[in-house]
Amino acid sequence: MIKFVPIIEALPATVPFVGPETLERRNGKKMRARLGANENVFGPSPKVITAMTKAASESWQYGDPEHYDLKATIASHHGVSPENIACGEGIDGLLGLAVRLFIEPGDAVATSLGAYPTFNFHVAASGGRLVTAPYVNDHEHPLALIPLAAREKAKLVYIANPDNPMGTVWPAREIKHMIDHVPDGCMMLLDEAYVEFAPAGTAPPMDVNCKNLLRFRTFSKAYGMAGVRIGYCIGHRDVIAAFDKIRNHFGISRMAQAGAIAAIKDQAHLARIIAKVARARTALYDIANANGLKPILSATNFVSMDCGRDQTFARAIVDGLLQKRIFIRMPGIAPLSRCIRISCGTQDNLQVLANALPSVLKSIR
Amino acid sequence: MIKFVPIIEALPATVPFVGPETLERRNGKKMRARLGANENVFGPSPKVITAMTKAASESWQYGDPEHYDLKATIASHHGVSPENIACGEGIDGLLGLAVRLFIEPGDAVATSLGAYPTFNFHVAASGGRLVTAPYVNDHEHPLALIPLAAREKAKLVYIANPDNPMGTVWPAREIKHMIDHVPDGCMMLLDEAYVEFAPAGTAPPMDVNCKNLLRFRTFSKAYGMAGVRIGYCIGHRDVIAAFDKIRNHFGISRMAQAGAIAAIKDQAHLARIIAKVARARTALYDIANANGLKPILSATNFVSMDCGRDQTFARAIVDGLLQKRIFIRMPGIAPLSRCIRISCGTQDNLQVLANALPSVLKSIR
Repeated sequence: MIKFVPIIEALPATVPFVGPETLERRNGKKMRARLGANENVFGPSPKVITAMTKAASESWQYGDPEHYDLKATIASHHGVSPENIACGEGIDGLLGLAVRLFIEPGDAVATSLGAYPTFNFHVAASGGRLVTAPYVNDHEHPLALIPLAAREKAKLVYIANPDNPMGTVWPAREIKHMIDHVPDGCMMLLDEAYVEFAPAGTAPPMDVNCKNLLRFRTFSKAYGMAGVRIGYCIGHRDVIAAFDKIRNHFGISRMAQAGAIAAIKDQAHLARIIAKVARARTALYDIANANGLKPILSATNFVSMDCGRDQTFARAIVDGLLQKRIFIRMPGIAPLSRCIRISCGTQDNLQVLANALPSVLKSIR
Repeated sequence: MIKFVPIIEALPATVPFVGPETLERRNGKKMRARLGANENVFGPSPKVITAMTKAASESWQYGDPEHYDLKATIASHHGVSPENIACGEGIDGLLGLAVRLFIEPGDAVATSLGAYPTFNFHVAASGGRLVTAPYVNDHEHPLALIPLAAREKAKLVYIANPDNPMGTVWPAREIKHMIDHVPDGCMMLLDEAYVEFAPAGTAPPMDVNCKNLLRFRTFSKAYGMAGVRIGYCIGHRDVIAAFDKIRNHFGISRMAQAGAIAAIKDQAHLARIIAKVARARTALYDIANANGLKPILSATNFVSMDCGRDQTFARAIVDGLLQKRIFIRMPGIAPLSRCIRISCGTQDNLQVLANALPSVLKSIR
């Protein structure tokens, strides 16, 4: 007889992570446009590919478990010290570690209803008790999250800025206000996975003296390295040091470390990609408007579109596009689930979408 | 004030993972021979490098979170089903997950005194209580571990076969006997990181109907892919399914998945590497004997050498070689720590070692 610990036993066996490959296997056909996972179709800097290719040939050696060069590069980029940086297997991996540092069974964790589900997945794995505030006007809401965290004595409060799945954003001063009002004994997790796409003035200045804030960044989005799996966390050195107590010390590949260093060093490529994404975002607004869907202004590399009806209707659009081998996603929880969420694609990708969407909508309206 | 959960608060802040890069930074010089981490200096198949290079150029896309193709390839190689395979960021990552599936604070975990320290690191992070049996004649001892696990009502019992850090091995029938006698309510973790180097007849036949056994394999050793970070676990489908409840679903890079598939498919390369390692092992025996050290017969890609005195003496050899920019390691706990542990290297590496060792020994004897 297998006897898992009670928390594990109680977790659902369903896997919430359905990738496009799974959908392709079900369909028996490749996607024509892969616009569901907010990947950056414009890709990483060629210098990243070169660095990773070189590292591949050295991969009989373990990667540096200290991430010394990588942390130095990231720290210098942000004007902080390497002691303020922890690297991990994507923001997902780092969120998992952060939850384990702070959450025991029964501890409250505050987030928004419908916000990033992978965070909730990690909270569940530690037996945390999720408490939620509703989105307000399609924004996660600092002025709701902070009182909620205080009332529930939450150990963690999570916000993504810009938000996923809605793409909405708060300016730095609102986030700074939230940071300043985090209750005692609560750690704020600020997920900035998409922040490079956001307007100037979105990210508050770095303040690594702040002991109750962890900020999460990734190479998966603006840097175009989703498949490489690397992200980092910025915080007070005493908090960052604790990651060493539980992380998989050799977990980040040699190629990932080399690629991430090259990515940070090529800010000119990053600027070009951000401009391309901005153009694709505008094109997505146009496609939405042309089809009677209401685009929600986005500070990310995706656009959520209000389809004007319920979850069933939005799901039918997702499924209809999937039948035409176009991969998009939608938020999972009402009222957000009245929307569909489409990632910025190449001009070709968006043309495929623009061609398919009218007939999908016609067939289900 | 930062308030970690009590288990985290109680863990030591010291980082037990000192890589060769750290030592190089301290010394200000590159190693001449990197023989401390049991890396496979002969490297992966050229087909692995090709596959990873191709995957690097596609790395704007997330890797398949299901590892569908990789699990199919591994399963076919072992004659089991994909449902019997879980992939992870090395055996280290998988051991961490296994501990979280089974260990609550205070639960006993049985291992050998001086065995793989990374496993102990994960047990500590879950608040597990480590109970140990001594090595017998430099072997981890099934006939000691099983009664220990029964007496302590251990939830997990760990054994590596072949062993690290000693390199010793049990034939399959002894391991099978251990599997057959694992106490009810206890899961046996069989770490086979080095098994490809071991004599035929070391690995017991696969039996995925066995519910209290998880077997761990890696691409880091015989397949020469330590820096890629990928390993897998074989077990009963009901146990394997539980990994999905807590793992970092997108944690394995696209390059790692592609590289591992290519590695499995090039068994001819693997055979050539195993032969090269066997020759290097013999060369290490010769170096030990020529220097008055007693080599311990190894079924791995390293050789532990009994230096005939205490831990201080062995440490002086490690430090003396380090000053000559030769990286080796030693077991951490007596009586194993009378030994030094040296990985199989190229002929050049071993010549560097053979040249340096006599003067190091002379200076400390």
